[in-house]
Amino acid sequence: MHMAYELYYWPTIQGRGEFIRLALEEAGADYRDIARLPERKGQGMPAMLACLDGDNTPQAAYAPPVLRDGDLLIGQTTNILLYLGRRLGLAPRAESGRLWLNQLQLTMADWLTEVHDTHHPLSMNQYYDEQKQAALQRSADFRATRLPKFLDYFTQVLLNSRGQYLLGARLTYGDLSLFQMLAGLHYAFPQAMARLAPAYPALQELHDTVAARPNIASYLQSTRRIAFNEEGIFRHYPELDG
Amino acid sequence: MHMAYELYYWPTIQGRGEFIRLALEEAGADYRDIARLPERKGQGMPAMLACLDGDNTPQAAYAPPVLRDGDLLIGQTTNILLYLGRRLGLAPRAESGRLWLNQLQLTMADWLTEVHDTHHPLSMNQYYDEQKQAALQRSADFRATRLPKFLDYFTQVLLNSRGQYLLGARLTYGDLSLFQMLAGLHYAFPQAMARLAPAYPALQELHDTVAARPNIASYLQSTRRIAFNEEGIFRHYPELDG
Repeated sequence: MHMAYELYYWPTIQGRGEFIRLALEEAGADYRDIARLPERKGQGMPAMLACLDGDNTPQAAYAPPVLRDGDLLIGQTTNILLYLGRRLGLAPRAESGRLWLNQLQLTMADWLTEVHDTHHPLSMNQYYDEQKQAALQRSADFRATRLPKFLDYFTQVLLNSRGQYLLGARLTYGDLSLFQMLAGLHYAFPQAMARLAPAYPALQELHDTVAARPNIASYLQSTRRIAFNEEGIFRHYPELDG
Repeated sequence: MHMAYELYYWPTIQGRGEFIRLALEEAGADYRDIARLPERKGQGMPAMLACLDGDNTPQAAYAPPVLRDGDLLIGQTTNILLYLGRRLGLAPRAESGRLWLNQLQLTMADWLTEVHDTHHPLSMNQYYDEQKQAALQRSADFRATRLPKFLDYFTQVLLNSRGQYLLGARLTYGDLSLFQMLAGLHYAFPQAMARLAPAYPALQELHDTVAARPNIASYLQSTRRIAFNEEGIFRHYPELDG
Protein backbone atom coordinates (compact mmCIF):
# COMPACT_ATOMS: atom_id res chain seq x y z
CA MET A 1 0.00 0.00 0.00
CA HIS A 2 1.20 3.48 -0.90
CA MET A 3 1.86 5.66 2.12
CA ALA A 4 0.22 9.06 2.18
CA TYR A 5 2.02 11.88 0.40
CA GLU A 6 3.27 14.56 2.76
CA LEU A 7 3.12 18.19 1.65
CA TYR A 8 5.24 20.73 3.51
CA TYR A 9 4.16 24.31 2.93
CA TRP A 10 3.25 27.49 4.79
CA PRO A 11 0.03 26.71 6.65
CA THR A 12 -1.86 30.00 6.22
CA ILE A 13 -1.56 30.80 2.51
CA GLN A 14 -2.34 29.20 -0.83
CA GLY A 15 0.96 30.34 -2.34
CA ARG A 16 2.97 27.92 -4.45
CA GLY A 17 1.72 25.00 -2.38
CA GLU A 18 -1.75 25.43 -3.84
CA PHE A 19 -0.62 24.12 -7.23
CA ILE A 20 0.33 20.87 -5.50
CA ARG A 21 -2.81 20.75 -3.37
CA LEU A 22 -5.03 21.08 -6.45
CA ALA A 23 -3.31 18.15 -8.18
CA LEU A 24 -3.60 15.93 -5.08
CA GLU A 25 -7.25 16.92 -4.58
CA GLU A 26 -8.25 16.35 -8.21
CA ALA A 27 -6.70 12.89 -8.09
CA GLY A 28 -8.29 12.07 -4.75
CA ALA A 29 -4.82 11.20 -3.45
CA ASP A 30 -4.15 10.38 0.17
CA TYR A 31 -2.04 13.27 1.49
CA ARG A 32 -1.27 15.21 4.62
CA ASP A 33 -0.74 18.97 4.68
CA ILE A 34 1.89 18.64 7.37
CA ALA A 35 2.40 22.25 8.49
CA ARG A 36 -1.33 22.54 9.18
CA LEU A 37 -1.29 19.59 11.58
CA PRO A 38 -0.48 19.66 15.31
CA GLU A 39 3.10 20.29 16.40
CA ARG A 40 2.76 17.92 19.29
CA LYS A 41 2.54 15.03 16.83
CA GLY A 42 5.81 15.97 15.15
CA GLN A 43 4.03 17.93 12.46
CA GLY A 44 3.26 21.64 12.12
CA MET A 45 5.79 24.32 11.22
CA PRO A 46 8.82 22.65 12.85
CA ALA A 47 8.39 19.68 10.52
CA MET A 48 8.27 22.02 7.51
CA LEU A 49 11.36 23.93 8.59
CA ALA A 50 13.26 20.66 9.03
CA CYS A 51 12.90 20.06 5.27
CA LEU A 52 14.89 23.25 4.71
CA ASP A 53 17.64 22.47 7.20
CA GLY A 54 20.69 21.36 5.23
CA ASP A 55 22.62 20.46 8.37
CA ASN A 56 20.23 17.62 9.07
CA THR A 57 18.52 16.97 5.72
CA PRO A 58 20.98 15.92 3.00
CA GLN A 59 18.83 17.12 0.10
CA ALA A 60 17.22 20.09 1.81
CA ALA A 61 15.20 22.45 -0.38
CA TYR A 62 15.93 26.15 -0.72
CA ALA A 63 12.29 27.00 -0.03
CA PRO A 64 8.89 25.32 0.32
CA PRO A 65 6.83 23.63 -1.07
CA VAL A 66 8.41 20.23 -0.47
CA LEU A 67 6.76 16.86 -1.05
CA ARG A 68 7.71 13.66 0.70
CA ASP A 69 6.86 10.32 -0.85
CA GLY A 70 8.35 7.60 1.30
CA ASP A 71 12.11 8.20 1.33
CA LEU A 72 12.02 10.73 -1.48
CA LEU A 73 12.00 14.45 -0.68
CA ILE A 74 11.24 16.74 -3.63
CA GLY A 75 11.38 20.53 -3.82
CA GLN A 76 10.35 23.20 -6.35
CA THR A 77 6.71 23.34 -7.42
CA THR A 78 7.19 22.42 -11.08
CA ASN A 79 9.49 19.55 -10.09
CA ILE A 80 6.94 18.16 -7.64
CA LEU A 81 4.26 18.28 -10.33
CA LEU A 82 6.63 16.63 -12.80
CA TYR A 83 6.99 13.79 -10.29
CA LEU A 84 3.31 13.54 -9.41
CA GLY A 85 1.95 13.97 -12.94
CA ARG A 86 2.13 10.40 -14.18
CA ARG A 87 1.49 8.91 -10.76
CA LEU A 88 -1.76 10.85 -10.33
CA GLY A 89 -2.88 10.37 -13.93
CA LEU A 90 -2.50 14.09 -14.62
CA ALA A 91 0.23 13.99 -17.27
CA PRO A 92 0.59 12.28 -20.66
CA ARG A 93 2.57 9.10 -21.05
CA ALA A 94 4.85 10.19 -23.92
CA GLU A 95 8.02 12.10 -23.10
CA SER A 96 7.21 14.81 -25.65
CA GLY A 97 3.88 15.49 -23.96
CA ARG A 98 5.42 15.57 -20.51
CA LEU A 99 8.06 18.06 -21.67
CA TRP A 100 5.43 20.32 -23.23
CA LEU A 101 3.39 20.19 -20.02
CA ASN A 102 6.47 20.98 -17.92
CA GLN A 103 7.26 23.88 -20.26
CA LEU A 104 3.76 25.34 -19.77
CA GLN A 105 4.02 24.85 -16.01
CA LEU A 106 7.38 26.66 -15.96
CA THR A 107 5.83 29.53 -17.90
CA MET A 108 3.10 29.77 -15.27
CA ALA A 109 5.78 29.76 -12.57
CA ASP A 110 7.41 32.77 -14.26
CA TRP A 111 4.03 34.48 -14.46
CA LEU A 112 3.43 33.81 -10.75
CA THR A 113 6.78 35.36 -9.83
CA GLU A 114 5.77 38.46 -11.74
CA VAL A 115 2.51 38.58 -9.77
CA HIS A 116 4.48 38.36 -6.54
CA ASP A 117 6.76 41.18 -7.62
CA THR A 118 3.82 43.53 -8.24
CA HIS A 119 3.56 43.98 -4.46
CA HIS A 120 7.19 43.25 -3.59
CA PRO A 121 9.31 44.79 -6.37
CA LEU A 122 12.25 45.85 -4.19
CA SER A 123 12.74 43.40 -1.36
CA MET A 124 11.17 40.31 0.15
CA ASN A 125 12.51 41.50 3.51
CA GLN A 126 10.45 44.67 3.62
CA TYR A 127 6.73 45.15 4.08
CA TYR A 128 4.55 46.14 1.17
CA ASP A 129 4.05 49.60 2.67
CA GLU A 130 7.77 50.23 2.53
CA GLN A 131 7.86 49.68 -1.25
CA LYS A 132 4.44 50.94 -2.21
CA GLN A 133 5.60 53.57 -4.70
CA ALA A 134 7.65 51.03 -6.63
CA ALA A 135 4.75 48.57 -6.39
CA LEU A 136 2.44 51.10 -8.04
CA GLN A 137 4.82 51.37 -10.99
CA ARG A 138 5.47 47.67 -11.32
CA SER A 139 1.74 46.87 -11.11
CA ALA A 140 0.86 49.42 -13.80
CA ASP A 141 3.41 47.77 -16.09
CA PHE A 142 2.12 44.31 -15.18
CA ARG A 143 -1.51 45.21 -15.94
CA ALA A 144 -0.69 47.04 -19.17
CA THR A 145 1.85 44.73 -20.78
CA ARG A 146 2.70 41.52 -18.96
CA LEU A 147 -0.78 40.35 -17.98
CA PRO A 148 -2.23 40.59 -21.53
CA LYS A 149 0.88 38.90 -22.93
CA PHE A 150 0.44 35.86 -20.67
CA LEU A 151 -3.33 35.76 -21.30
CA ASP A 152 -2.67 35.90 -25.05
CA TYR A 153 -0.13 33.12 -24.79
CA PHE A 154 -2.30 30.66 -22.88
CA THR A 155 -5.30 31.42 -25.09
CA GLN A 156 -3.19 30.52 -28.11
CA VAL A 157 -2.08 27.29 -26.44
CA LEU A 158 -5.71 26.37 -25.73
CA LEU A 159 -6.78 27.12 -29.30
CA ASN A 160 -3.85 25.18 -30.76
CA SER A 161 -4.64 22.17 -28.53
CA ARG A 162 -7.99 21.75 -30.34
CA GLY A 163 -9.44 20.41 -27.12
CA GLN A 164 -10.99 21.57 -23.91
CA TYR A 165 -7.69 21.52 -22.06
CA LEU A 166 -4.14 22.79 -22.57
CA LEU A 167 -2.95 19.48 -23.97
CA GLY A 168 -6.17 18.58 -25.77
CA ALA A 169 -8.96 16.31 -24.64
CA ARG A 170 -7.47 15.19 -21.33
CA LEU A 171 -7.07 17.16 -18.14
CA THR A 172 -3.49 17.61 -16.85
CA TYR A 173 -2.03 19.33 -13.81
CA GLY A 174 -1.36 22.32 -16.08
CA ASP A 175 -5.08 22.98 -16.36
CA LEU A 176 -5.47 22.95 -12.58
CA SER A 177 -2.61 25.45 -12.35
CA LEU A 178 -4.07 27.70 -15.03
CA PHE A 179 -7.36 27.68 -13.10
CA GLN A 180 -5.43 28.78 -10.02
CA MET A 181 -3.63 31.58 -11.90
CA LEU A 182 -6.94 32.92 -13.23
CA ALA A 183 -8.70 32.63 -9.85
CA GLY A 184 -5.80 34.43 -8.20
CA LEU A 185 -5.68 37.18 -10.80
CA HIS A 186 -9.42 37.79 -10.45
CA TYR A 187 -8.91 38.09 -6.70
CA ALA A 188 -5.88 40.39 -6.86
CA PHE A 189 -6.82 42.53 -9.86
CA PRO A 190 -10.64 42.45 -10.08
CA GLN A 191 -10.92 45.64 -12.13
CA ALA A 192 -8.15 44.83 -14.58
CA MET A 193 -9.43 41.30 -15.03
CA ALA A 194 -13.06 42.45 -15.47
CA ARG A 195 -11.84 44.73 -18.26
CA LEU A 196 -9.66 42.06 -19.92
CA ALA A 197 -11.72 38.89 -19.38
CA PRO A 198 -14.27 39.45 -22.19
CA ALA A 199 -11.41 39.26 -24.70
CA TYR A 200 -10.38 35.85 -23.33
CA PRO A 201 -13.47 33.59 -23.33
CA ALA A 202 -11.44 30.38 -23.77
CA LEU A 203 -9.60 31.08 -20.51
CA GLN A 204 -12.81 31.79 -18.62
CA GLU A 205 -14.26 28.55 -19.94
CA LEU A 206 -11.20 26.59 -18.80
CA HIS A 207 -11.47 28.21 -15.37
CA ASP A 208 -15.15 27.28 -15.07
CA THR A 209 -14.64 23.74 -16.36
CA VAL A 210 -11.94 23.04 -13.78
CA ALA A 211 -13.93 24.66 -10.95
CA ALA A 212 -16.89 22.39 -11.78
CA ARG A 213 -14.99 19.12 -11.65
CA PRO A 214 -16.45 17.18 -8.70
CA ASN A 215 -13.25 16.79 -6.67
CA ILE A 216 -12.20 20.38 -7.26
CA ALA A 217 -15.68 21.79 -6.52
CA SER A 218 -15.77 19.80 -3.30
CA TYR A 219 -12.26 20.95 -2.36
CA LEU A 220 -13.05 24.62 -3.01
CA GLN A 221 -16.02 24.35 -0.63
CA SER A 222 -14.01 22.63 2.10
CA THR A 223 -11.93 24.07 4.92
CA ARG A 224 -8.88 22.52 3.26
CA ARG A 225 -8.99 25.40 0.74
CA ILE A 226 -7.34 28.37 2.44
CA ALA A 227 -8.97 31.66 1.40
CA PHE A 228 -6.97 34.18 -0.61
CA ASN A 229 -5.42 36.73 1.74
CA GLU A 230 -2.84 39.48 1.90
CA GLU A 231 -0.05 37.21 3.16
CA GLY A 232 -0.06 35.15 -0.03
CA ILE A 233 1.18 35.71 -3.57
CA PHE A 234 -2.14 36.97 -4.97
CA ARG A 235 -2.97 40.02 -2.84
CA HIS A 236 -5.80 42.43 -3.31
CA TYR A 237 -4.47 45.93 -2.82
CA PRO A 238 -7.03 48.19 -4.57
CA GLU A 239 -4.39 50.80 -5.40
CA LEU A 240 -2.43 48.22 -7.46
CA ASP A 241 -5.52 47.37 -9.53
CA GLY A 242 -7.26 49.63 -12.04
CA MET B 1 22.88 9.47 -37.41
CA HIS B 2 21.63 12.11 -34.98
CA MET B 3 20.94 15.44 -36.63
CA ALA B 4 22.54 18.50 -35.09
CA TYR B 5 20.70 20.13 -32.19
CA GLU B 6 19.41 23.59 -33.03
CA LEU B 7 19.50 26.27 -30.35
CA TYR B 8 17.33 29.36 -30.80
CA TYR B 9 18.37 32.27 -28.61
CA TRP B 10 19.23 35.96 -28.77
CA PRO B 11 22.46 36.20 -30.77
CA THR B 12 24.29 38.92 -28.84
CA ILE B 13 24.00 37.88 -25.19
CA GLN B 14 24.82 34.93 -22.98
CA GLY B 15 21.51 35.17 -21.13
CA ARG B 16 19.55 32.02 -20.41
CA GLY B 17 20.83 30.41 -23.60
CA GLU B 18 24.30 30.16 -22.10
CA PHE B 19 23.18 27.40 -19.72
CA ILE B 20 22.28 25.33 -22.78
CA ARG B 21 25.42 26.26 -24.71
CA LEU B 22 27.63 25.14 -21.81
CA ALA B 23 25.97 21.71 -21.68
CA LEU B 24 26.27 21.20 -25.43
CA GLU B 25 29.91 22.36 -25.41
CA GLU B 26 30.95 20.18 -22.46
CA ALA B 27 29.44 17.14 -24.19
CA GLY B 28 31.05 18.00 -27.53
CA ALA B 29 27.57 17.80 -29.08
CA ASP B 30 26.89 18.77 -32.67
CA TYR B 31 24.74 21.91 -32.51
CA ARG B 32 23.94 25.10 -34.36
CA ASP B 33 23.36 28.43 -32.65
CA ILE B 34 20.70 29.37 -35.20
CA ALA B 35 20.13 33.06 -34.49
CA ARG B 36 23.86 33.72 -34.95
CA LEU B 37 23.84 32.21 -38.44
CA PRO B 38 23.02 34.01 -41.72
CA GLU B 39 19.43 35.02 -42.42
CA ARG B 40 19.79 34.27 -46.09
CA LYS B 41 20.06 30.59 -45.25
CA GLY B 42 16.77 30.60 -43.32
CA GLN B 43 18.55 31.09 -40.02
CA GLY B 44 19.26 34.24 -37.99
CA MET B 45 16.71 36.14 -35.94
CA PRO B 46 13.68 35.38 -38.16
CA ALA B 47 14.18 31.68 -37.50
CA MET B 48 14.28 32.34 -33.74
CA LEU B 49 11.16 34.49 -33.82
CA ALA B 50 9.31 31.77 -35.75
CA CYS B 51 9.68 29.47 -32.70
CA LEU B 52 7.65 32.01 -30.71
CA ASP B 53 4.90 32.45 -33.29
CA GLY B 54 1.88 30.50 -32.09
CA ASP B 55 -0.05 31.15 -35.29
CA ASN B 56 2.38 28.99 -37.23
CA THR B 57 4.12 26.90 -34.56
CA PRO B 58 1.67 24.64 -32.66
CA GLN B 59 3.82 24.37 -29.53
CA ALA B 60 5.39 27.83 -29.64
CA ALA B 61 7.37 28.90 -26.61
CA TYR B 62 6.60 32.01 -24.56
CA ALA B 63 10.22 33.14 -24.76
CA PRO B 64 13.63 31.85 -25.86
CA PRO B 65 15.72 29.75 -25.42
CA VAL B 66 14.19 27.00 -27.53
CA LEU B 67 15.89 23.78 -28.59
CA ARG B 68 14.97 21.77 -31.65
CA ASP B 69 15.89 18.09 -31.82
CA GLY B 70 14.42 16.69 -35.01
CA ASP B 71 10.66 17.19 -34.76
CA LEU B 72 10.74 18.09 -31.11
CA LEU B 73 10.69 21.74 -30.06
CA ILE B 74 11.43 22.39 -26.38
CA GLY B 75 11.25 25.66 -24.44
CA GLN B 76 12.23 26.84 -20.95
CA THR B 77 15.88 26.52 -19.93
CA THR B 78 15.42 23.98 -17.14
CA ASN B 79 13.15 21.88 -19.35
CA ILE B 80 15.72 21.83 -22.18
CA LEU B 81 18.40 20.72 -19.72
CA LEU B 82 16.07 18.07 -18.32
CA TYR B 83 15.73 16.72 -21.86
CA LEU B 84 19.42 16.96 -22.76
CA GLY B 85 20.79 15.73 -19.44
CA ARG B 86 20.67 11.97 -20.01
CA ARG B 87 21.32 12.27 -23.73
CA LEU B 88 24.53 14.24 -23.17
CA GLY B 89 25.69 12.15 -20.23
CA LEU B 90 25.24 15.10 -17.88
CA ALA B 91 22.52 13.73 -15.58
CA PRO B 92 22.20 10.64 -13.41
CA ARG B 93 20.26 7.61 -14.55
CA ALA B 94 17.99 7.19 -11.52
CA GLU B 95 14.80 9.23 -11.35
CA SER B 96 15.57 10.43 -7.82
CA GLY B 97 18.90 11.88 -8.99
CA ARG B 98 17.33 13.55 -12.00
CA LEU B 99 14.66 15.15 -9.81
CA TRP B 100 17.25 16.45 -7.38
CA LEU B 101 19.28 17.88 -10.26
CA ASN B 102 16.19 19.52 -11.75
CA GLN B 103 15.38 20.96 -8.32
CA LEU B 104 18.83 22.53 -8.07
CA GLN B 105 18.58 23.86 -11.62
CA LEU B 106 15.20 25.45 -10.82
CA THR B 107 16.70 27.07 -7.76
CA MET B 108 19.44 28.57 -9.95
CA ALA B 109 16.74 29.80 -12.36
CA ASP B 110 15.07 31.62 -9.46
CA TRP B 111 18.43 33.10 -8.47
CA LEU B 112 19.03 34.26 -12.06
CA THR B 113 15.64 36.00 -12.17
CA GLU B 114 16.60 37.86 -9.00
CA VAL B 115 19.86 38.93 -10.68
CA HIS B 116 17.87 40.23 -13.66
CA ASP B 117 15.58 42.18 -11.38
CA THR B 118 18.48 44.01 -9.73
CA HIS B 119 18.73 46.19 -12.85
CA HIS B 120 15.08 45.91 -13.98
CA PRO B 121 12.95 45.92 -10.81
CA LEU B 122 9.99 47.84 -12.25
CA SER B 123 9.55 47.00 -15.91
CA MET B 124 11.16 44.99 -18.68
CA ASN B 125 9.79 47.60 -21.09
CA GLN B 126 11.79 50.49 -19.71
CA TYR B 127 15.50 51.17 -19.87
CA TYR B 128 17.68 50.74 -16.83
CA ASP B 129 18.13 54.49 -16.52
CA GLU B 130 14.39 54.94 -16.10
CA GLN B 131 14.32 52.66 -13.03
CA LYS B 132 17.72 53.36 -11.57
CA GLN B 133 16.53 54.52 -8.14
CA ALA B 134 14.53 51.35 -7.65
CA ALA B 135 17.47 49.31 -9.00
CA LEU B 136 19.75 50.81 -6.35
CA GLN B 137 17.38 49.64 -3.62
CA ARG B 138 16.77 46.20 -5.08
CA SER B 139 20.50 45.64 -5.62
CA ALA B 140 21.37 46.65 -2.07
CA ASP B 141 18.87 44.09 -0.81
CA PHE B 142 20.19 41.46 -3.22
CA ARG B 143 23.82 41.96 -2.12
CA ALA B 144 22.98 42.06 1.57
CA THR B 145 20.49 39.22 1.92
CA ARG B 146 19.66 37.23 -1.21
CA LEU B 147 23.16 36.69 -2.60
CA PRO B 148 24.61 35.27 0.65
CA LYS B 149 21.54 33.09 1.10
CA PHE B 150 22.01 31.45 -2.32
CA LEU B 151 25.78 31.13 -1.80
CA ASP B 152 25.15 29.48 1.56
CA TYR B 153 22.64 27.11 0.02
CA PHE B 154 24.84 25.86 -2.80
CA THR B 155 27.82 25.55 -0.48
CA GLN B 156 25.75 23.31 1.75
CA VAL B 157 24.67 21.21 -1.25
CA LEU B 158 28.32 20.78 -2.28
CA LEU B 159 29.38 19.80 1.22
CA ASN B 160 26.49 17.35 1.59
CA SER B 161 27.33 15.73 -1.76
CA ARG B 162 30.67 14.56 -0.35
CA GLY B 163 32.15 14.92 -3.83
CA GLN B 164 33.68 17.48 -6.12
CA TYR B 165 30.35 18.24 -7.78
CA LEU B 166 26.78 19.09 -6.75
CA LEU B 167 25.66 15.47 -7.07
CA GLY B 168 28.89 13.88 -5.91
CA ALA B 169 31.72 12.43 -7.96
CA ARG B 170 30.22 12.98 -11.42
CA LEU B 171 29.77 16.24 -13.30
CA THR B 172 26.19 17.18 -14.25
CA TYR B 173 24.69 20.11 -16.13
CA GLY B 174 23.98 21.66 -12.74
CA ASP B 175 27.71 22.18 -12.17
CA LEU B 176 28.06 23.93 -15.51
CA SER B 177 25.19 26.20 -14.55
CA LEU B 178 26.63 26.94 -11.12
CA PHE B 179 29.90 27.88 -12.82
CA GLN B 180 27.94 30.28 -15.04
CA MET B 181 26.12 31.83 -12.07
CA LEU B 182 29.41 32.45 -10.26
CA ALA B 183 31.16 33.80 -13.36
CA GLY B 184 28.23 36.14 -14.01
CA LEU B 185 28.08 37.33 -10.41
CA HIS B 186 31.81 38.09 -10.41
CA TYR B 187 31.27 40.11 -13.61
CA ALA B 188 28.22 42.02 -12.39
CA PHE B 189 29.12 42.51 -8.73
CA PRO B 190 32.96 42.39 -8.55
CA GLN B 191 33.19 44.25 -5.25
CA ALA B 192 30.44 42.36 -3.47
CA MET B 193 31.78 39.04 -4.73
CA ALA B 194 35.38 39.90 -3.79
CA ARG B 195 34.15 40.59 -0.28
CA LEU B 196 32.02 37.44 -0.05
CA ALA B 197 34.12 34.91 -2.00
CA PRO B 198 36.67 34.12 0.75
CA ALA B 199 33.83 32.73 2.86
CA TYR B 200 32.85 30.34 0.06
CA PRO B 201 35.96 28.40 -0.99
CA ALA B 202 33.99 25.33 -2.12
CA LEU B 203 32.12 27.42 -4.68
CA GLN B 204 35.32 29.00 -6.01
CA GLU B 205 36.81 25.54 -6.35
CA LEU B 206 33.78 24.29 -8.29
CA HIS B 207 34.01 27.33 -10.57
CA ASP B 208 37.70 26.72 -11.26
CA THR B 209 37.26 22.98 -11.78
CA VAL B 210 34.56 23.52 -14.39
CA ALA B 211 36.51 26.32 -16.13
CA ALA B 212 39.51 23.97 -16.44
CA ARG B 213 37.64 21.10 -18.11
CA PRO B 214 39.12 20.79 -21.60
CA ASN B 215 35.94 21.35 -23.60
CA ILE B 216 34.83 24.24 -21.40
CA ALA B 217 38.29 25.87 -21.39
CA SER B 218 38.39 25.63 -25.16
CA TYR B 219 34.86 27.06 -25.46
CA LEU B 220 35.60 29.99 -23.17
CA GLN B 221 38.55 30.92 -25.38
CA SER B 222 36.55 30.65 -28.60
CA THR B 223 34.45 33.23 -30.43
CA ARG B 224 31.44 31.04 -29.69
CA ARG B 225 31.51 32.39 -26.12
CA ILE B 226 29.82 35.79 -26.25
CA ALA B 227 31.40 38.24 -23.78
CA PHE B 228 29.36 39.48 -20.81
CA ASN B 229 27.79 42.80 -21.71
CA GLU B 230 25.14 45.29 -20.58
CA GLU B 231 22.39 43.83 -22.75
CA GLY B 232 22.45 40.50 -20.91
CA ILE B 233 21.21 39.32 -17.53
CA PHE B 234 24.50 39.82 -15.67
CA ARG B 235 25.28 43.53 -16.12
CA HIS B 236 28.09 45.48 -14.57
CA TYR B 237 26.71 48.79 -13.36
CA PRO B 238 29.24 49.99 -10.75
CA GLU B 239 26.57 51.88 -8.81
CA LEU B 240 24.67 48.61 -8.20
CA ASP B 241 27.76 46.93 -6.75
CA GLY B 242 29.48 47.77 -3.48
